[in-house]
Amino acid sequence: MYRVGIDLGGTNIKVGIVDENQKIIAIASSPTMGKRSANEVIKDMANLVKSLIKKAEINSNDISGVGIGCPGTIDTINGIVLYSNNLNWEDVPLIDELHELLQYPIRVSNDANCAAIGEVKAGAAKDLKNIVMLTLGTGVGSGIILDGKIFEGGHPGGAELGHTILVKDGRECTCGRKGCLEAYASATALIQTTKEMVRKHKNSLILKFCKGDLEKIDGKMVFDAFEQEDEVAVKIIDDYISYLGEGIVDIINVFRPDRILLSGGICNQGKTLTNPLDAYVKKYCFAGEKAMIPNVTKASLLNNAGIIGAAALLEM
Amino acid sequence: MYRVGIDLGGTNIKVGIVDENQKIIAIASSPTMGKRSANEVIKDMANLVKSLIKKAEINSNDISGVGIGCPGTIDTINGIVLYSNNLNWEDVPLIDELHELLQYPIRVSNDANCAAIGEVKAGAAKDLKNIVMLTLGTGVGSGIILDGKIFEGGHPGGAELGHTILVKDGRECTCGRKGCLEAYASATALIQTTKEMVRKHKNSLILKFCKGDLEKIDGKMVFDAFEQEDEVAVKIIDDYISYLGEGIVDIINVFRPDRILLSGGICNQGKTLTNPLDAYVKKYCFAGEKAMIPNVTKASLLNNAGIIGAAALLEM
Repeated sequence: MYRVGIDLGGTNIKVGIVDENQKIIAIASSPTMGKRSANEVIKDMANLVKSLIKKAEINSNDISGVGIGCPGTIDTINGIVLYSNNLNWEDVPLIDELHELLQYPIRVSNDANCAAIGEVKAGAAKDLKNIVMLTLGTGVGSGIILDGKIFEGGHPGGAELGHTILVKDGRECTCGRKGCLEAYASATALIQTTKEMVRKHKNSLILKFCKGDLEKIDGKMVFDAFEQEDEVAVKIIDDYISYLGEGIVDIINVFRPDRILLSGGICNQGKTLTNPLDAYVKKYCFAGEKAMIPNVTKASLLNNAGIIGAAALLEM
Repeated sequence: MYRVGIDLGGTNIKVGIVDENQKIIAIASSPTMGKRSANEVIKDMANLVKSLIKKAEINSNDISGVGIGCPGTIDTINGIVLYSNNLNWEDVPLIDELHELLQYPIRVSNDANCAAIGEVKAGAAKDLKNIVMLTLGTGVGSGIILDGKIFEGGHPGGAELGHTILVKDGRECTCGRKGCLEAYASATALIQTTKEMVRKHKNSLILKFCKGDLEKIDGKMVFDAFEQEDEVAVKIIDDYISYLGEGIVDIINVFRPDRILLSGGICNQGKTLTNPLDAYVKKYCFAGEKAMIPNVTKASLLNNAGIIGAAALLEM
């Protein structure tokens, strides 16, 4: 049997057929064009699934169901996207509407949850029961797996670790509060900090790397300057590690998982990022050596985690 | 059948016999005298249980087991108190040692978890499946009930909501970090803030209430001055509400429970405390009106929650 996983993003709809060994055997994508109505996006999802099944020459009876990872606040029980900023959706009955076009069992969950489940099924957290995964991108997404199951909170709108406070009355966050983890630990936040610092310290290598155009600064430039011991970059990265480190210590003090996974472009830095985070976490976790302290590890499935995890929703 | 609940604190050992309707039918206590060895404390616990069963004229066959609520970091699976600051215990095999003296099934959990379970069984969260309870005392303890079960994290040392950051690099916390919720929202923290403020603002009513002796300041004095619109007290309470409010919004963004319960002496203020907290939370929770926002409610069982909850460990 096979399952279909859909990774629905603000930019692209990605669909994969996943076999029983968690391998993606066929994949397709099309642009989401999120400014269209939800109806049109859902029609595209259905067509993409149908054409991929046909192209892969799989009998539709061999498909056990369709799972969807979707950004935003989801009522997973009723299959309704309550609110998604990325898709510009409100109260969209995603499962019901897709079900009219695709007669398979359909499940939906938040995209960060799906990525976390993907890593548990086939990635850097394979076979672990309790993990927390942070996605460091435009924002900070979080997927929490407890006792092998997705943890979404008692009601929709939980498991939003990116929207917990790190600096009361600090930087403005997209959620309306000030000082959330997201406002300090996302890739966007790293770049914001870098711009602020480079404006004040014109001697930084980073200013050379971006050829004087602050709008061109990306995370890699900061880490490249850090590798060359540029003082400004060292300060930026040290601060970034301490913000993200504090956020991870908070997560461990609450969830005490088997492992912490990080994903997003920043994680390409590998141990440059995870080694100092591990050291930070070992120093500050509650109860110190008396309690187990999980490692901080880079997620391994990259963009495929979402598809594999969405497909796995059918077996949760 | 009856169960025995033990609320083991740094000051007193409290034991109760609880019936099937969650009523305490007999109660006894003795001082913990925590400076003694764990062995001696455990002997006292056993003797207290035995004598209470005898005094209540209950046949020992009618006792189905003994539950213990214990402060600190507990390995509940193996019944070991890994670390308890209040008791000055390290790696104490509590269940094994007590079992040598009391031949009943024995369970142990953190005291804040027991208080939360007590409120679910018989108090302000009766029959709710998902609640988070904060105990605002010397520190900030937390009990988390998810889907009707105690949530302790994947490994011992989780569920410590008091030790998540609210103000990075802020006030020193007892856990070794700076700026934890506990350092701003505990009763101790409220009094610390009050002392700092009264030192600067000698015109405050609070200075009259404590007769000029800052060491005599308690939480009630601050709220009494607040009721009389003392400017300093109003500022202290407004700030306290905003710190505790931020902490509660964090909890809702992660756990999205049916209700938030508060306990501890400060909660005697009732709606003076919970009304502004409710308003704060409604304003700042993630996803706003699109997601369910739980009420903030005063716990109702006071000191009995721990005994009732400890006894209920036998049925978890």
